Amino acid sequence: MQRHFDQELKDLKEKILRMGGMVEEQVQGALRALVERDSVLARQVIENDHRVNALDVEVDEDCLRLLALQQPAARDLRFITTAMKISTELERISDLAENICERAIELNEEPQLKPYIDIPHMANWSLQMVKESLDAFVNADPALARKVCGDDDFVDDLTQQLFRELLSFMLENPQTITRAIRITFIAKYLERIADHATNVAELVVYMVEGKIIRHTLG
Amino acid sequence: MQRHFDQELKDLKEKILRMGGMVEEQVQGALRALVERDSVLARQVIENDHRVNALDVEVDEDCLRLLALQQPAARDLRFITTAMKISTELERISDLAENICERAIELNEEPQLKPYIDIPHMANWSLQMVKESLDAFVNADPALARKVCGDDDFVDDLTQQLFRELLSFMLENPQTITRAIRITFIAKYLERIADHATNVAELVVYMVEGKIIRHTLG
Repeated sequence: MQRHFDQELKDLKEKILRMGGMVEEQVQGALRALVERDSVLARQVIENDHRVNALDVEVDEDCLRLLALQQPAARDLRFITTAMKISTELERISDLAENICERAIELNEEPQLKPYIDIPHMANWSLQMVKESLDAFVNADPALARKVCGDDDFVDDLTQQLFRELLSFMLENPQTITRAIRITFIAKYLERIADHATNVAELVVYMVEGKIIRHTLG
Repeated sequence: MQRHFDQELKDLKEKILRMGGMVEEQVQGALRALVERDSVLARQVIENDHRVNALDVEVDEDCLRLLALQQPAARDLRFITTAMKISTELERISDLAENICERAIELNEEPQLKPYIDIPHMANWSLQMVKESLDAFVNADPALARKVCGDDDFVDDLTQQLFRELLSFMLENPQTITRAIRITFIAKYLERIADHATNVAELVVYMVEGKIIRHTLG
């Protein structure tokens, strides 16, 4: 029974990592659709979002089943409820990839305002945070999780820098306003992806150091 | 034992409603700080966010304790995991109230661009959605929850309308751009509050109709 349960926990970890990989592909697809001005790809990424949603439901089902049938205690219990919450964060990141695609489709209908340089940089940084937060989860590594939480500032700084640049475009030529605002929104979506990675990382610190459980059951 | 457990579930419901009330106050405070140009109040709302965070941690503790000690089955299990997730949604709404305050403080440092009419309207509508989604939760009312999901469109329409208005301001007078973008961000925050209410409502439909549990345990 315990051995079977351990295998189920291992499967759950793998499913979360698979979901993470899928979400990463969605964000990368959205960025490619933007940078390469490929609206067909953008629509494809939007179409694929349902796969992430399906995996979110599957993780939720798995967790509820494990909670109901295995009645796990302290450590495993925290692991399972954390997995449920991480799955929600990942599903939200996929929604943001969809939002990026919506703005990309709008932007692709007009001449390009400027080459995209900061945006891909922000995207890579945010995705790295997502990846590391999930590694911190599967390896129960609070040090890595804490590192991810600190990385958030860099994305915020890049967003501020991009805002200033876009603002100068808008002031010089009001014809650029609509496009500049759409790019601003994309920067905000990427900032939120980094926020979700931070949420995951915070959940991992919580899970590993178990303050909540220790406080209430101790 | 069962009776004691029932009381604990009732306490959990009450705590979620209390948290909902606190979050509503945060959003209303943020709006007042904006409309009345009261940056002292804005800073106070930001300061109060930690109370919502504390309640979120408390709900989480309660849920983990109930899961560990009571080992609830199907219906109660779903109720408890839903409460955990709703608590996260509420905590995020409070974060958005904080974001509104940050933009309000910036806006209050400059002359007012225009009277705030749509923004309070959007805020009231979003808060009504939050309130009803929580009512749907405590009364296990999927019909009300479905109604909330539909109400989301109205907020999106209002946002679009406000964007068009702000865009005309920016085109006519580039000096308004920074302020108009800040107001745009506030509209986006309110849209996200409505999204969180929709998330809560979707969780309630899920909880009551129990498709996940039925599918895996049936």
